[in-house]
Amino acid sequence: MASFILTLSGPDRPGIVHAVTAFLVQNDLNIIDSSQYGDATSKRFFMRTQFAQANAADETPDLEKLHAAFKSTAESFDLDFEINPSVKKPRVLIMVSKIGHCLNDLLFRQSTGQLSIEVPLIVSNHPDFATLAATYNIPFHHLPVTADTKAQQEAQILELVREHNIDLIVLARFLPSFKGAKPYHQAFDRGVKIIGATAHFVTSDLDEGPIIEQNVVRVNHGMSPKELTHAGSNVESNVLATAVKYVTERRVILNGHKTVVFN
Amino acid sequence: MASFILTLSGPDRPGIVHAVTAFLVQNDLNIIDSSQYGDATSKRFFMRTQFAQANAADETPDLEKLHAAFKSTAESFDLDFEINPSVKKPRVLIMVSKIGHCLNDLLFRQSTGQLSIEVPLIVSNHPDFATLAATYNIPFHHLPVTADTKAQQEAQILELVREHNIDLIVLARFLPSFKGAKPYHQAFDRGVKIIGATAHFVTSDLDEGPIIEQNVVRVNHGMSPKELTHAGSNVESNVLATAVKYVTERRVILNGHKTVVFN
Amino acid sequence: MASFILTLSGPDRPGIVHAVTAFLVQNDLNIIDSSQYGDATSKRFFMRTQFAQANAADETPDLEKLHAAFKSTAESFDLDFEINPSVKKPRVLIMVSKIGHCLNDLLFRQSTGQLSIEVPLIVSNHPDFATLAATYNIPFHHLPVTADTKAQQEAQILELVREHNIDLIVLARFLPSFKGAKPYHQAFDRGVKIIGATAHFVTSDLDEGPIIEQNVVRVNHGMSPKELTHAGSNVESNVLATAVKYVTERRVILNGHKTVVFN
Amino acid sequence: MASFILTLSGPDRPGIVHAVTAFLVQNDLNIIDSSQYGDATSKRFFMRTQFAQANAADETPDLEKLHAAFKSTAESFDLDFEINPSVKKPRVLIMVSKIGHCLNDLLFRQSTGQLSIEVPLIVSNHPDFATLAATYNIPFHHLPVTADTKAQQEAQILELVREHNIDLIVLARFLPSFKGAKPYHQAFDRGVKIIGATAHFVTSDLDEGPIIEQNVVRVNHGMSPKELTHAGSNVESNVLATAVKYVTERRVILNGHKTVVFN
Repeated sequence: MASFILTLSGPDRPGIVHAVTAFLVQNDLNIIDSSQYGDATSKRFFMRTQFAQANAADETPDLEKLHAAFKSTAESFDLDFEINPSVKKPRVLIMVSKIGHCLNDLLFRQSTGQLSIEVPLIVSNHPDFATLAATYNIPFHHLPVTADTKAQQEAQILELVREHNIDLIVLARFLPSFKGAKPYHQAFDRGVKIIGATAHFVTSDLDEGPIIEQNVVRVNHGMSPKELTHAGSNVESNVLATAVKYVTERRVILNGHKTVVFN
Repeated sequence: MASFILTLSGPDRPGIVHAVTAFLVQNDLNIIDSSQYGDATSKRFFMRTQFAQANAADETPDLEKLHAAFKSTAESFDLDFEINPSVKKPRVLIMVSKIGHCLNDLLFRQSTGQLSIEVPLIVSNHPDFATLAATYNIPFHHLPVTADTKAQQEAQILELVREHNIDLIVLARFLPSFKGAKPYHQAFDRGVKIIGATAHFVTSDLDEGPIIEQNVVRVNHGMSPKELTHAGSNVESNVLATAVKYVTERRVILNGHKTVVFN
Repeated sequence: MASFILTLSGPDRPGIVHAVTAFLVQNDLNIIDSSQYGDATSKRFFMRTQFAQANAADETPDLEKLHAAFKSTAESFDLDFEINPSVKKPRVLIMVSKIGHCLNDLLFRQSTGQLSIEVPLIVSNHPDFATLAATYNIPFHHLPVTADTKAQQEAQILELVREHNIDLIVLARFLPSFKGAKPYHQAFDRGVKIIGATAHFVTSDLDEGPIIEQNVVRVNHGMSPKELTHAGSNVESNVLATAVKYVTERRVILNGHKTVVFN
Repeated sequence: MASFILTLSGPDRPGIVHAVTAFLVQNDLNIIDSSQYGDATSKRFFMRTQFAQANAADETPDLEKLHAAFKSTAESFDLDFEINPSVKKPRVLIMVSKIGHCLNDLLFRQSTGQLSIEVPLIVSNHPDFATLAATYNIPFHHLPVTADTKAQQEAQILELVREHNIDLIVLARFLPSFKGAKPYHQAFDRGVKIIGATAHFVTSDLDEGPIIEQNVVRVNHGMSPKELTHAGSNVESNVLATAVKYVTERRVILNGHKTVVFN
């Protein structure tokens, strides 16, 4: 049976869920899983509902009709919303530089079905991962960048995004707990006992985008900067894969510069 | 503003959330936080909704009236439900034997407001924790038990439950990963690298009740059975406190011999 | 059988362990547990050895004699060292202000034997925890402090340290991941998914002392600043208790502004 | 500078470390990292020492000579021992069946230097991972097995082990917390909140070999058996990679049916 995910957010006021469920009942749709959250600080309301047709014998609901049917409800409550088929795999462009553990991890999880995404292409400013991409039969675009060609490279990427109907761009790099250059050398110098990584949305304000997921790994005094880097790589891969999973399952909704994650 | 928590479960069918939200809208109530879950295996539907009066100027909703207002909806969908004021602190009877770390932890969290519970009395078959109870000004009932007095002791406990309007009985003991006698000695003998604890509802089938919460702690070859016991005590306290928190915040709904935990 | 812990550090050079074990062999002492670490960056060597008399029938080794016997070895290798009886419980002065979860946690662990420490007194600038201290029969010194009396209060504390032969002062407060005022409100504003705590040695440079232990707890978008504070309190208690355990078991050796932790 | 790892175990008695360090001093060798452990239960002693030549100008120590030089010490204390160059990458044969996440994870970590191993060949009873092996330029031996050909297949594997000087065979499959068929379906039916995995040495007693490493991941009521399987796959990969790392760094020593892990 066809199943869909509706996500919405808007100013908090009475009757939103009632209006949403009226729409579901009127269209013979059944809730599989649903979460709502009202933020007492921002006074905004967030909802994620996965629903399916109530009777298998019915005609499969049409996405455009569903969209049109919900539009007036959304407008009357001033809601931003999206409706997506649950089975729709978001088309993800992965951008990678010279460090490949996150790329390899994402590709393997995609190939085994752990991540329900399509990866129509990989873009890199270095040629290093052309072979890895080829293993998975994914076109690899090597777009080198210099100070002179930066604007041109960005234009090429935007063109690829349009051409391939990309839903999500994943930068397969990371924000460790220590910022700046050589974060794991900094962690070594400070003698930390835990190393963390953060996956966040990208904003123009470097490293300050809304946080999607974070995790950590224990380290100890006997680990060299190289070993800390390996431990960090591991937690980075896991955090990024989890964040991509949440985003592609429509579990993440922006709440100002924070996120609501219905996981 | 008065706030309430509605929890319900019943056979999954279309329109439940719509009917619930109709009830909310008709009574000028606003959703603060809400989660739903439909179990594809058991075909049952679960919901937890925290709501408050929409207008502070309105009269405070009356619990009995709310109950009566929702009753016909519940009946038409064959739902089990409860409505409780959010601020209502469940009255918890703690039973303890000779091991006190969970008792101490629960009492301290209660005293600092981390756990929103009332503890009108503590019952034990040993006198050991009378002083600890006195520190918190909680009546301590020492009800020794032998094979001969077991039935009598149980009758006394039931009488105390009635007399004190107890909502929840917490057995401040535990199910570690290894079952049977001396679990941490077994863990030592097996050379495990992780020790876990489980908080579950009690059923007549020993240690097989629905699981509420589980957690673990890392251990190593250098730890003696005594040190494993200390590490286990720590994770036991945390797991039980978390489970009590979930239950008293009405986040746990039974689903056959499993639980739905809206955390 | 009497058992001791030798800890040492000094410039790394060949023969240190050989010299230490010569001392053990010559004094009929047997290694129970031993760890060494040579830091390739600081070129310093660290060792912790727990040893016991090899023959139960022998006379119990005398601490002063052991100290004297090892002194020449230590001097020839330019080593800092300590020898302590394993059973010796460090005398710990706990200082607390108005937040008591760490104090309560330390006292309970002490009372159950999880922490092998003596707590001859508690010092506070507020009277709030006099009752809790009384429960454990520990003298409570209320030493209020104002800008005018700060020097006098510090002098009183130093006098108490001398008078009670204090080995370790524990400040039962904490360094969460966010620094500055109201750290958990900052964490709330940033929308973090993890909250951490750090136990460190105190230096004159606020919050920058050598790190002993760190840990984290997962949080989510639905948690209020108050709930984040509770989650933080929990991880703070655990981190501080772990750090105190490591220090009192002589597992922590300073390595410049870092620590070697033989755990 | 050449560096080596000495591991040993034997009956606990005074003087072992002294004798080991005498050997080091006499051969101008310097300790980098060393750990010892005496098991009070089994009365056995365990040691792992990483050492290097003290003077870079000296001739590189010869492995055979070191072995010969230590042999008499080992015999006099009845010690089992091994000396291996730190840089020596163990030659690992990976055996895989139809589930490939552990294989992929090991190969990628090997390729990035996180695991210091050589993988001269992969053996499988199915052809599924021939392409993955080819990506890493590793010969892939497809040795199908039926009841009739089992003995023959095992003989072929033993021949490959000899021919390729294999140091370690890794079975890239796993022991989850629930044993038997479909462990994650069992976990689903029980409603667990945590899923774990164990890496252990293989013995003839199925799933009861000495435990090397264990870890867990949190799961919840909303996860299907398929999602539990994915979560399990993730923790399985991490646990196996950690176990292989420990074994290949000579950090694991057998202690009866348990392990000492110097990590």
